[in-house]
Order: sequence, then structure tokens, then C-alpha cells
Amino acid sequence: MKNIVKPYKKDFDYSYTSGASVTVELLKTNPGSVETVYIHSAFTQPEKIENICSTNRIPCIFNDSVFKRINQKENTYVLGVFKKTMSKIAAGEPHVVLVNPADMGNLGTIIRTLAGFNICNLSIINPAADIWNPKTIRASMGSIFHMNFQHFDDIEDYLNAFPKHHKYTFMLDADAELYPGIITRPPLYSLIFGNEATGLDGTYKDIGTAVKIPQSMLIDSLNLSTAVAVAVFSFTS
Amino acid sequence: MKNIVKPYKKDFDYSYTSGASVTVELLKTNPGSVETVYIHSAFTQPEKIENICSTNRIPCIFNDSVFKRINQKENTYVLGVFKKTMSKIAAGEPHVVLVNPADMGNLGTIIRTLAGFNICNLSIINPAADIWNPKTIRASMGSIFHMNFQHFDDIEDYLNAFPKHHKYTFMLDADAELYPGIITRPPLYSLIFGNEATGLDGTYKDIGTAVKIPQSMLIDSLNLSTAVAVAVFSFTS
Repeated sequence: MKNIVKPYKKDFDYSYTSGASVTVELLKTNPGSVETVYIHSAFTQPEKIENICSTNRIPCIFNDSVFKRINQKENTYVLGVFKKTMSKIAAGEPHVVLVNPADMGNLGTIIRTLAGFNICNLSIINPAADIWNPKTIRASMGSIFHMNFQHFDDIEDYLNAFPKHHKYTFMLDADAELYPGIITRPPLYSLIFGNEATGLDGTYKDIGTAVKIPQSMLIDSLNLSTAVAVAVFSFTS
Repeated sequence: MKNIVKPYKKDFDYSYTSGASVTVELLKTNPGSVETVYIHSAFTQPEKIENICSTNRIPCIFNDSVFKRINQKENTYVLGVFKKTMSKIAAGEPHVVLVNPADMGNLGTIIRTLAGFNICNLSIINPAADIWNPKTIRASMGSIFHMNFQHFDDIEDYLNAFPKHHKYTFMLDADAELYPGIITRPPLYSLIFGNEATGLDGTYKDIGTAVKIPQSMLIDSLNLSTAVAVAVFSFTS
């Protein structure tokens, strides 16, 4: 049990949820990973969280000073400290692959979108934004706890690990257009997206089917989380 | 001409673009609204911006202290001061309507998405996040300058102004599901979305066709900008 919560750093073996609803999501989904829950004295309805903690024998501590140390922008009154757990993505299910995603807000929003469309296997190619940073967790609204993750240092490693998935690479200069209702999807597929600023480089054209999302000349590109949302909606609906 | 740029406030009659690419977008799209462009001495390629300013007789000033006053989180080296201009939305084109959007980042991302799918008429029901805040402009990546906006104090005012648009209200408890490729869209339509936290209240069920985006039980709702992206893609593709 950790009694002192320090401001989060990437190399910690634990992270934390900040806010009541995200912490409840953590407690419901993965109670075994939770080390301690802190509640601020200003939090008006602690009973629900206290009950879940009690059922799962998780220490639930009223302590205001913890919240000052963590130094959130917003006032949050509930903090869940949990051990990072690594999972593997499922070989028999569709994947989304993010190559070098850089923005934690984007990453969290993407995770929320994937969970919303029942895609629960996310592969991330390093270097990448930290999935366990409280900012990512917050942007995911807690849906991160429903997701299987697997990091690879190189796209080749991913491709070798999952040869049966048909790969769709989302690129601005692809020939094929994503068109709702038109795509014939194979049972196993990977939707692959590049970094926010650079997208996927030309080598990705040859690893599967390159697809572009039709867009006007008024913008350079869609936001990454928007592109993922549109693609995943088309593939899963 | 303003020689002093103060940190932005909502009641100013001017705002500013922060960053080279957004400022170039402003200069290309709406040069008549630009009062002054400031360039930091550390900016390495000022020629393009100097040329556009010169062509349009816009003062282009090298001045580092302006950038300190504006106090950006990130280092930006180009600042475009422009007069806010109100436009009207087109009666003969599709609309998106946002009811009380609260988050400037979301609003800017939504504007970028709309521009990407050639929806250039956005109606906003007050109270709402400030479209002219530099944060909104930045999140829009400059696509805001392609957009017609119109604010209404009440949804009734909007409905009375545009009776010919078929209204689609996006609500979690709607009966009809958004399904790519299925929707028969009328020539004139309004896609109406609620606030990030509260959505649309029950009264919106009766003003047109209520639609829900199918989503799993793993999340409470999609992010607002995600919902708008998926809906607009489905309607425009």
C-alpha cells in the first residue's frame, strides 16, 4: 500500500484515476489493481465508493493533503491509486494500431471511441504518449480499463505477431476511399493510423490496403481522433 | 491598427491567431479582417507571411515583447490580430447546430471536422464557448475562417429562422439508429447536438427525427466532437 501519492511520472509502476466517475469505473472494472482510494473531505457522496472499496478490501482513506500534492488543474475529490497492468491484445479480434501517437488527450479520446464501438484491442508503436498518464486516463473517461493494450517497438514486430489480420492503413494519398456501408470487411482486420503531425510514411502503402477518408480542400487533415472515429464507425456499423 | 496586443478577452472586438500556419490560413481566407501581423525574431522563414501582408497592405511587425504579453503555453512566433466578423449561415445549405457547447477545444475540433466534410454553416445556441477565443481558433487549425456562424439565444429562434431544414437531433435515447449508408438525407438538414455533459433534453425528441449513434455499454457516451464527426461523415459521404 502506498500512503504517499507523488505527482505522476511515467516510470512509476502505479498511476491514478482523478475524479469520482473515472475511479468508480476503475473499481468496477479492475478492482484487483487498486491499491488505495483517497477521498477529499469536501466530497459529498462517498458512500458508493466506500462500499465498493469495502467489498473489495481496498483501503479507502479520507485525506485532503494528497489532493494538494497531486496538483490537479481542476478540483477533484476522489483519487484511485492502481498498479499498472499490462495486457495482450487478442489475436482473434479486430485491432486498432496507433503509430507514435503523441498527444495524451487524443489518445484518451481515441480509447473512449474504441470502447464505444466495441474495439477493445489497441496496439501502440513506440515512441508514444503514455497510456497510463492520468491525463490519458481522464480523457478516456475510464474506458481505458476495458481495453487490451500491447506496445511494439516497431511496426514489423506487430505485423509479424498478427499475420492473419488484414491491414488497412489510413493515409491522405491512398487511392481507395472510405465510404460508409461500402467496405467489405474481413473477419480480422487492423486499422492503422499515423502520428498526429506526420501521418504514416510511404512505406505503409505496401503492407495492406491504403485507405483515405474523403475530405475537402479546406483542411490539411482531420484530427487524429476524428479520423479514427470515422474509420472505426464505418468498420463496425 | 492595434499596436498593443493584450491577452484575449471575450468582449474584445478583435482576436488573434497564434502560430504560423493558422495565421497563414487567416491571411489567405480573410485578409480584409487582419489588422496587424507580429513576427518574433526567432521565426526562421518570415518571407511568405511578409509577402502576403505586403500584397494586402497589412502591417507586419517584428516585435518579441508582444509574444511575452500574450503568454502562450507553447512558443509561437507568429501572431495575427484580426477584427471579429460575424457572418450569417446560408439558408440553402445543410447546418450543424450546437446547443450550449462548453469546451473551446471541442468546438475548434468540431469546426475542423465540419470544414473537412464541407459543412460550412454552424449555428450555436447560447450560452456557449467563445468561437473567437484563440484556443478555439487554434484547435480549428484555422479552418474557422471558412465557416459561417450564427448565434441564437434560444433553439426556438433557430427553428423559426430555418423552417425548411429537416431537423435531426442526436440523443442517447432515440429510437432511430445512425447507420452508415442507410440514412436517406433530405436536401436541407440540420444536425443538432447537445452540450458535452448533458446532451439534449427530452423536448428535442419532438422537433424532428431523433437519432442515436449505436454505442456499446462500455461508455456513457461518445465525446461530443466524436459524435459530430461520425454523424457528419454519415450524412455527407
